[in-house]
Formats: sequence, structure tokens, C-alpha cells
Amino acid sequence: MAGIFYGVGVGPGDPGLLTLKAKQILEEADVIAVPVKKPGEKSTAFEIIRQVVETEGKEILETVFYMTADPSVWRSCAKEAAALVEARLKKEKKVVLITLGDVTVYSTCMYVQQYVAAKGYRTELIPGISSYSAGAACAGIALAEGKETLAVVPALKNPEQLGTVLELFDNVILMKASKSIRWLGEYMRQEKIPRTNAVVLCCVGLPGEYIGPLDESREYGYFTTVIVKKGTGGLKEEQE
Amino acid sequence: MAGIFYGVGVGPGDPGLLTLKAKQILEEADVIAVPVKKPGEKSTAFEIIRQVVETEGKEILETVFYMTADPSVWRSCAKEAAALVEARLKKEKKVVLITLGDVTVYSTCMYVQQYVAAKGYRTELIPGISSYSAGAACAGIALAEGKETLAVVPALKNPEQLGTVLELFDNVILMKASKSIRWLGEYMRQEKIPRTNAVVLCCVGLPGEYIGPLDESREYGYFTTVIVKKGTGGLKEEQE
Repeated sequence: MAGIFYGVGVGPGDPGLLTLKAKQILEEADVIAVPVKKPGEKSTAFEIIRQVVETEGKEILETVFYMTADPSVWRSCAKEAAALVEARLKKEKKVVLITLGDVTVYSTCMYVQQYVAAKGYRTELIPGISSYSAGAACAGIALAEGKETLAVVPALKNPEQLGTVLELFDNVILMKASKSIRWLGEYMRQEKIPRTNAVVLCCVGLPGEYIGPLDESREYGYFTTVIVKKGTGGLKEEQE
Repeated sequence: MAGIFYGVGVGPGDPGLLTLKAKQILEEADVIAVPVKKPGEKSTAFEIIRQVVETEGKEILETVFYMTADPSVWRSCAKEAAALVEARLKKEKKVVLITLGDVTVYSTCMYVQQYVAAKGYRTELIPGISSYSAGAACAGIALAEGKETLAVVPALKNPEQLGTVLELFDNVILMKASKSIRWLGEYMRQEKIPRTNAVVLCCVGLPGEYIGPLDESREYGYFTTVIVKKGTGGLKEEQE
């Protein structure tokens, strides 16, 4: 029996948003690999899973991914994490790397999976609920309806970039949007986009959760997402 | 005790991709509302949940949503479904409407939820795994990495529309893409986008599943999605 690597998305915060498959794989794991931004740091993903998975008796393996704009630092983190994982796979362990949200969207998992797969080990990725899906569901809005289009963009720098995207798309998800909140409010006023067409998602399913209208007076953390809807969806006009 | 309405995304096919919360809510439901495209038709969403949820003793409520380009037909379907749901909510029932994939992305759930909420009933939406997340995970590719952008577009009509989107975006998800496969292959040749940058997802987690390269000689069903990646992701160049 050879080892196997799983990359598992654990959803944005509510442990109830773990999939049945993710729970089962975590329960069967020998090693749970936990990405952190610096050594010894608490992991949100781990706090989520320990509410529904018994982790007693499993090795908890810390893997450090420094927050950096330098891709070479990031690559060496990924390599180091992959080496730690590989050492366990050699011993025929079942290793599960957990990641917040969905494993296919801006996740550290993919890098480790690519390295480990390239070494010939079996790997499997288990999708998770993304923060924007969970946030939209909480807010009671659709990310896209009917023939609408949807754009997901990380860290827009200015209103011109947003303007270009909004010209082409009906719905826009702005990731890491904390620094954009101020100019976004101004932009919506100028373009006469109703305030209710934007929903801010912050810490979905976690302590300090905020899901609500754009409020320039609030402070927002790094993982802030804003959904901007150009239209108002299919049925609302008729209801009003 | 008043009734409550839940709109629940059940994922694309594998019952293991149901969330823990979705399973629990379905187990507690009095009524499971099942959208079908015509009366008496089998529902894929229902086939998924019955593998993990005991439905014995619950009312299974068929709600018909005809496949149509006419929004007035669609609206009357939604109204009729909402009326059926409302009649049960009045009797203080827990009603769960199930939908394939994610409830916030091109789902019938939202319309019914809007109607029922407007009548003053409590409603809750539970997000699900979308077919493109599950498909990307199966194919071992990221929908977006690092600073990449992602676009989700339903039913593109021609290569020019795709060209406009690909100019602006790193990754594009083409929904309902069965009719686009032929010109998409031609377009990728012309633009010198490697064939391996496109992945076709068909019936993810269901009978007849196909997750693989663009193959113009195959027949694809209505729910075919194509992921086109402009780049090759962050780490691959270095590995090669």
C-alpha cells in the first residue's frame, strides 16, 4: 500500500459546510497538514475541522506559507511543505492538507499537490464551499442568474479596472477588497449603482462575521470580499 | 412554530459532496421540494440525496420548471412552485428545495426563495459545491491561483465573445458549452493556446462523466462546462 495525498477544502468557517467526503477523509487520515502564515500560528482551517473530526492520535503537521509578494519565497515554502508531506507518503501514510474555502480557488493546496503528483504519488483534491458562495447564500443573493455573467477578481487597484470589468460582466466578486472599500463607494455613487447592489463579506461563518451593505466607516480585514451586482436579478422588478 | 424554507445546493453528483449541514437539514425536513423539467421526470438532485438521506415518511413535492427562453413561462413556474411551498409553510412544515450544484449559481432556488421571503416566511440558503469546482478538483487544476482572475460565462455565441473575455481574464469557465466545442477548438489552434489549457467537464460525478481534453469528435450534453486557462499557473514553468 502506497501513501496518498489529499488536498481538502474545508469551507469558509461553519464546520457544517464541510462535505461528507472531506469529513470521512479527515477521519481516516494519519497526518493532517495545516498551512500557517508563520510558525506556531493558529490555523482557522484546523479550528473548523476539529469541531467535527476527532484529531486525537493523528500527526498534526505544520506547513509554513509566508504571506509574500515574492514568488520565490512562496515557491520555497511550497517545496518545503511538499518535502514534509513526501516524507510521510514514503512511510505509506494518508496525508490530508486542509485549506480554507475551496481547494481550486486561490489555495496553497494546489502547489503542494503539483509537487507531490510530479513525484509519482497518488493525489486527490476534494472541493470545498468558497467564501463567496457561502456569503452570497447568507446574504440571500445569487452570484449569477439566468444568462448573467460572473467575474472573480483579486485585489483591484482602482475604479478604472473595476469599470472595465463591470462593463463586460453582470456580477463581480472582488477578493481581498478591504483597501478598495473607499473608492468603491465613491465609484458606485458616481455610476449611480444602488448601494444595495453591493454586499460586503468579512469572516463568513467566523468570529467577527460581517455580511452587509458597503459601510466606509467600518474597518475590514485582509479576507474581505465584495460582491457587486450590476443588475438586480430576474424576478425583482416584477415584484416591486 | 412557523414554517421555514431552505434552498439547498446538493453538489454536482457525488453524494459525498453534500455538506454536513445539507444532510442534517434534509433529514429534519417534512417536505422535500424537487424541481423537474417536466412532470413525472426523474430528478438528478433527488437521486443524489436519496443515497445519503432517508426520505421515507417525507412528502416529496414535485415542482415543474420548464426549460424555456421565455422569462414569463419561467416566472409562472416559479410562482406556482412558491405557492406549493407556501401552502406547506402555512402548515408549519420544514420545506427543503433541492438544487444541483450551488444554490447561488444559476439556480432555480433563488426565485422561489425570493417569493417566499417576500411573503414573510423565514428562509435560509445552504451553499453547495458547484460543478466547475468539483470538475477542476477532479482534473487537478486550479480555477484561479495567485493574482489570476476568473470569469464565469453562460452560453457564449462565438469566438469573438470568448476573445474579449480571454483578453481580460486568466481563466474562463464556459457554462452550457456543448455547442461551443467546435469553434473553441478552432479558436485555440488559431490563438496558439495549448490544447492542454482547456478541460471539458461533462456530468461530473454522474453516469457518463467525462473530464478530459477538448475532443471535437465526442458528443456533449446540455450541462457541459469548459474551463479554459490562458496561463499555465504559477509553478509549472519552473518544474518543467
